Amino acid sequence: MRVVRVFTGDDVRYGLADEGSITLISDEPFAAWETEETIALHGARLMPPSMPTKIVCVGINYKAHAAEMGHKLPKEPVIFLKPPTTMNATGGEIHLPPGVGRVDYEGELAVIMGRRAHRVPVGDALSHVLGYTCANDVTARDLQKLDGQWTRAKGFDGFCPLGPWAETDVDPSDLLLETYLNGECVQTTRTSDMIFSVPEVVSFVSHVMTLLPGDAVLTGTPSGIGPMAAGDVVEVRIEGIGSLINRVV
Amino acid sequence: MRVVRVFTGDDVRYGLADEGSITLISDEPFAAWETEETIALHGARLMPPSMPTKIVCVGINYKAHAAEMGHKLPKEPVIFLKPPTTMNATGGEIHLPPGVGRVDYEGELAVIMGRRAHRVPVGDALSHVLGYTCANDVTARDLQKLDGQWTRAKGFDGFCPLGPWAETDVDPSDLLLETYLNGECVQTTRTSDMIFSVPEVVSFVSHVMTLLPGDAVLTGTPSGIGPMAAGDVVEVRIEGIGSLINRVV
Repeated sequence: MRVVRVFTGDDVRYGLADEGSITLISDEPFAAWETEETIALHGARLMPPSMPTKIVCVGINYKAHAAEMGHKLPKEPVIFLKPPTTMNATGGEIHLPPGVGRVDYEGELAVIMGRRAHRVPVGDALSHVLGYTCANDVTARDLQKLDGQWTRAKGFDGFCPLGPWAETDVDPSDLLLETYLNGECVQTTRTSDMIFSVPEVVSFVSHVMTLLPGDAVLTGTPSGIGPMAAGDVVEVRIEGIGSLINRVV
Repeated sequence: MRVVRVFTGDDVRYGLADEGSITLISDEPFAAWETEETIALHGARLMPPSMPTKIVCVGINYKAHAAEMGHKLPKEPVIFLKPPTTMNATGGEIHLPPGVGRVDYEGELAVIMGRRAHRVPVGDALSHVLGYTCANDVTARDLQKLDGQWTRAKGFDGFCPLGPWAETDVDPSDLLLETYLNGECVQTTRTSDMIFSVPEVVSFVSHVMTLLPGDAVLTGTPSGIGPMAAGDVVEVRIEGIGSLINRVV
């Protein structure tokens, strides 16, 4: 299933997308719901697939990216947060803030939580997940180095495109993840190259902070990060999920 | 005015506290509301004074604390986030997570936003504030050093006591801020010793991420940080606001 959130003209509703249509549902997808009317997928204004109370990210989770950043391989995941105001939808604009220098794309696989997760073991972690989506952990690289803490660099409004939907029927362990800048492939990896697997990341985070339905966990970016400029179009594409496309302005 | 959130037995309601009673109000305090019934303040179960979508903190904002941590004085505020699951009320328990080593108190003045703030100038920042409260930025000190990023160390469930209320009628520029551990004063400063003033901090953060009504901004801790052990009682007391009291378990 592809769980979407869609702006219907006067409201934002959850729905289930297939190739051509969206069937709206009566409630959030985390509990009981019934199907309601169907609208066309083409031309629908998709929103990020959930409304997270928090967006938790893993800093270094691919070996090749650790090397390009000059980091040693971590023994445990290093986590950080992006505020909910960073959320952005597929088709939305990424605004370059004035005076911040270089701003990079970072294509990532994101987990959307379906059930509360508090200190869940690795073997049980995926049962708390609703589905998977594409994310762009947009980062003001110069500020990241300047501050030491990554919150400002990664925390500007709109710096977390998420979408196009939460795919519930996909195994996250070995998916092709690619980022395209103006149609050119700039990041390519398989999620099997993660240092910490998706269940390991979810379990680890849940031992620190309780994850709630709709919360997003970004699982790290592979090598190939690079800057974006106004006018660029950036696409994060993940096998079995779909494409997240944003224009930089 | 002292804006409180109180658990009434079947619901959490906003209200206005005086010395002995709480007058419940019909809506959130950020827009129009009417007064409703009055309940006793004594014995009332106070909750954190708002439900923030984000808790933004300043890392080093008192000169003496910068010195004790071995940091140079920052040219700009260094900001980080605590997830909403860290929220804890006055009277609530601070749980020491297993195996994390030293856990410290950090008494702080917190700002509760009243109006949306997006790139507001310093001179206009305080007009976006609802009021001020006491905060304890509880920190697992060993993990803070280990990770580099502070999110895990400061992000455990219950690691952000906030309260007892948002005091709307106080000037934040020169207040006595004290932390007591088992009745002994361990931190004492005046907020006039901040490196970046409250309006400067709010303005700075609002130039990164849009602040929403109810969001909390913690303005940094003074010198005198130290560890807590199970059974300890920690109190953050701010002149003109009140006391935030928590037991460590």
